[in-house]
Amino acid sequence: MPADIASTSGKQSITAFAAADPVFVCVISYTATSEIPGITVAGANPDLIKYTSPADAEFLYYGKCMCVEGVPATPDGKPTPALITRTALLKGEIPSFVVDAGALVKPSVPFFSFGLDSGRNILTHAAMEKSAVKRALELGEITGKQLARLSDLVVIGESIPGGTTTALAVLTALGVDAKFKVSSSMPENPHSLKNRVVEAALARSDSMSQNAGSSLEAVALLGDPMIPSVAGIARGALSAGCRVMLAGGTQMTAVMLLLKLLDTRLRGLCIGTTKYVMDDRTSDLAGLAKAVSPETPVLTCDLHLEDSVKPGLRSFNQGFVKEGVGAGGASLAAMLKSDKITGRNLMAAIEKEYESCIESRMGQIKSG
Amino acid sequence: MPADIASTSGKQSITAFAAADPVFVCVISYTATSEIPGITVAGANPDLIKYTSPADAEFLYYGKCMCVEGVPATPDGKPTPALITRTALLKGEIPSFVVDAGALVKPSVPFFSFGLDSGRNILTHAAMEKSAVKRALELGEITGKQLARLSDLVVIGESIPGGTTTALAVLTALGVDAKFKVSSSMPENPHSLKNRVVEAALARSDSMSQNAGSSLEAVALLGDPMIPSVAGIARGALSAGCRVMLAGGTQMTAVMLLLKLLDTRLRGLCIGTTKYVMDDRTSDLAGLAKAVSPETPVLTCDLHLEDSVKPGLRSFNQGFVKEGVGAGGASLAAMLKSDKITGRNLMAAIEKEYESCIESRMGQIKSG
Repeated sequence: MPADIASTSGKQSITAFAAADPVFVCVISYTATSEIPGITVAGANPDLIKYTSPADAEFLYYGKCMCVEGVPATPDGKPTPALITRTALLKGEIPSFVVDAGALVKPSVPFFSFGLDSGRNILTHAAMEKSAVKRALELGEITGKQLARLSDLVVIGESIPGGTTTALAVLTALGVDAKFKVSSSMPENPHSLKNRVVEAALARSDSMSQNAGSSLEAVALLGDPMIPSVAGIARGALSAGCRVMLAGGTQMTAVMLLLKLLDTRLRGLCIGTTKYVMDDRTSDLAGLAKAVSPETPVLTCDLHLEDSVKPGLRSFNQGFVKEGVGAGGASLAAMLKSDKITGRNLMAAIEKEYESCIESRMGQIKSG
Repeated sequence: MPADIASTSGKQSITAFAAADPVFVCVISYTATSEIPGITVAGANPDLIKYTSPADAEFLYYGKCMCVEGVPATPDGKPTPALITRTALLKGEIPSFVVDAGALVKPSVPFFSFGLDSGRNILTHAAMEKSAVKRALELGEITGKQLARLSDLVVIGESIPGGTTTALAVLTALGVDAKFKVSSSMPENPHSLKNRVVEAALARSDSMSQNAGSSLEAVALLGDPMIPSVAGIARGALSAGCRVMLAGGTQMTAVMLLLKLLDTRLRGLCIGTTKYVMDDRTSDLAGLAKAVSPETPVLTCDLHLEDSVKPGLRSFNQGFVKEGVGAGGASLAAMLKSDKITGRNLMAAIEKEYESCIESRMGQIKSG
């Protein structure tokens, strides 16, 4: 059994997800909620937020971004988590597909389209039409069913800036106490800002709908297009008897809640993430997952990034980035597929990829 | 060995394509060349042509069309070939994906987007930019590589009205004598019209380019977005060591020619189609395939539709429709996957699907 994997439900729940043919799906999306100042650092400045998720999708396939100039890292070298995802998929020889669930800018990669608009700012508008929520679920289900026939584990990650705030809103509307529990890509988690946004959004949606407590209505009023899209893919794959890993942090508990409220059979489902989210003191993934579905295991991988020679990678253990683009789930899938892949040799591969995709280009830009 | 499969290269070439995990890809597209009166009957009237390929994609998943009212059949009951494709995929439990390569109307199904515009009318314009040809090849390759990791046979079909004319133009420009050899969905194959269109298009393109004999240039000037998209997917899958079946009639020889001129290793490639195209006296698939790549087998399936109780299905043996939406390739894949699937029991399943998806609704419309 892989040494660098832990689970909230014991060792058996880890071996239960061993997979010979995992497939990785990255759902990219957008919510205008991310434009509220202070909500996200994904995207160094507000005009760049809309490029974050397509740039992540491009990075997965090409090791560089096509839709924006420059390197997907902060000026001091903290990289996009897509670096981890890309490395894990390459090392694990895991096929990957991108799903566009309303990204504002489309990536220069082949992507599944669900024909969805981007999500509106929940502070001021309903996130999307209820018909869009249904469409995301339906087209997601078709996609999940097709993938289930080709694979024994469908791993679904996401890239949507501002997504923890919409997840918090959906969880809260549907009765889960999630305040101060959702995570952030920053060490200083802006809980009070998120809570204020969500309270205002809930007040607005209560006045708009008699039925804000129903799951589809709550997602339409307060969520984002990623949530029903990931839920749809998961539902389709689970219904075809395939196992599913929701690859992400606290946002995935909102997806899991939607699945549960749609009466999806959750056997075969897990959440997969990094140790850095699980150990985060500013959020409570384990508590949220337990509140939503106590029998669903949360698997975490230890990539030993605290021992990395690269300060940009060590920062993942210091509260920065921590997860995203399914980094934890892709790493878990690689380890679950091959005994030869461990947290430590994956870290070494990530460092090499960091040198070739991030450091070398940062140098070019500085000297260029 | 399946009794209802024949090959131009002997029995061994049939068993060489036996597959446990085939996957089906349907590439939908559009060329304004189809708007030339008399070129196509796909779409009963000119305004409907643009709905043909998205409606086919919807029919594959839902057994009905969403983007147009009515039943995808001629008034006297000749159905879309997607009926055969759908039945074969269901019976063979074969997963399927739709790729949008410039369809003018987008289907209400999940589809891979390659971000391509539809093709222009080659009589009056270059079909597309050379950069679009390159993009189709590149994004196709990525897609083919991902599918190759999940499957042992990638079957690629197409739906593009007017596609035999653009195929004829590309074949001719690249030195293959294809006049009077491309097929048609009508028993009266409008060869002289197609030849006139192609001669005029070639004269126009010769005046536009010094380099119309290069393969990418010929596709850009005279082809359609389907050709490089299918070629790209095939190239990606072949390069990853997976076998590939080009599922269609004479159009696929243009794809094969492009692959060959791009120095693709064609080992593991075949064309797969119906007996009805192969036996068609108004075209010459075997001759075209031999001229392009003599070592590539053409596999054909016999669905015994001449014995069907449904006149609409018997018409496939009388020169109508004959093939399309990868009908022959999907049928072959089902038979190659399971010994239990034969041409005759597939025909019986097609008749049942014809009753539930076509006949019952035609009755509703008449009585409604």
